[in-house]
Amino acid sequence: MILRSPRENGCNERDTNASPLVPEQIGKARGFVEKGGIYRHFESKQQLAAEAFDYAWKLAIDTRFEGTRDIPNTMDRLKLFVRNFRDRRGRLVPGGCPLVNTAIDSDDGHPQLRRKARRALDYWLDRLQSIAEEGKQRGEVHSAIDSAKLATLIVSTLEGGLMVSRLQRRDGALDFACRHLEEYLETSIRARESKTWAGKS
Amino acid sequence: MILRSPRENGCNERDTNASPLVPEQIGKARGFVEKGGIYRHFESKQQLAAEAFDYAWKLAIDTRFEGTRDIPNTMDRLKLFVRNFRDRRGRLVPGGCPLVNTAIDSDDGHPQLRRKARRALDYWLDRLQSIAEEGKQRGEVHSAIDSAKLATLIVSTLEGGLMVSRLQRRDGALDFACRHLEEYLETSIRARESKTWAGKS
Repeated sequence: MILRSPRENGCNERDTNASPLVPEQIGKARGFVEKGGIYRHFESKQQLAAEAFDYAWKLAIDTRFEGTRDIPNTMDRLKLFVRNFRDRRGRLVPGGCPLVNTAIDSDDGHPQLRRKARRALDYWLDRLQSIAEEGKQRGEVHSAIDSAKLATLIVSTLEGGLMVSRLQRRDGALDFACRHLEEYLETSIRARESKTWAGKS
Repeated sequence: MILRSPRENGCNERDTNASPLVPEQIGKARGFVEKGGIYRHFESKQQLAAEAFDYAWKLAIDTRFEGTRDIPNTMDRLKLFVRNFRDRRGRLVPGGCPLVNTAIDSDDGHPQLRRKARRALDYWLDRLQSIAEEGKQRGEVHSAIDSAKLATLIVSTLEGGLMVSRLQRRDGALDFACRHLEEYLETSIRARESKTWAGKS
């Protein structure tokens, strides 16, 4: 059976957790070149949804951390991550954050997909926590900061801003969230002795 | 046609934007007492989804602002709102925030429901903005604060925290978001001349 879109295939677009473009993109990535023919390569809608999530999420996480490894100061690395979340969305799969979509869509009956989203969130939080922890060891992040809590707060604030922006169909909320975090990182998280150094970077 | 649940009626639970309890609750509220028989009272799944949203949202917004009118200081009113969002969820319709669920579910093909969610968000933001604005006029909120931005940041941070908590199935993220906002309101938003007064409240 060859069909042109997930919807025509009896597969709601939501099952792909993103736009109908995603299956086509997965098809290209896996070398299924027939136009509209990728659906027969997946055993089930769940498998397609899982691959769509992996595809959209890898793109999102790579883009959000893009360039952060090149920045020596960990505080500035966290701030670049925050700005990337706001600014580098052009290449992403349309339709908001794949993690939030999958979290909500899988909450009532897709345990496998839900576990996938949960693992993705854990990985994301661990990565931010590691940056903050390294910053503490290097004296760049205030020693009293709980790195796990900081990582969670950053992700929560950005995801909430994106969600409100998405509903309003304008970028204001995400921009406020980003600016608020930048200010918070600068005033409450950066270690005092690190400020002069950071001013030069 | 009398059916016992939305799912059995060909109506995915997601169409009600909450748990399957909601239609039963709406039925009670509208006086449809027959067990499981409320679906025949709605013209379409869309109408049922719209009424389910109205029901869940009214419960959420009333609970979140509960008791705030009794507090004279506007800063303490905002802080109570933040704590209500975290603490008073026991009576709400299960399944996360009805606004976020509806926003994501209606994004690709339910324009009427999407408009409803958008109006609900606008009302919520307006109400918070009015409290902040009143606070500025009374010298309780810092005069340089943009009330609209503050309202948006509060909603974004809480909704993001709730979303992360929901995915993690533990309250940590929502609690961090709430505590962060309380501290932010106290240190950056409360007008300095209001602090002594507030300390007595």
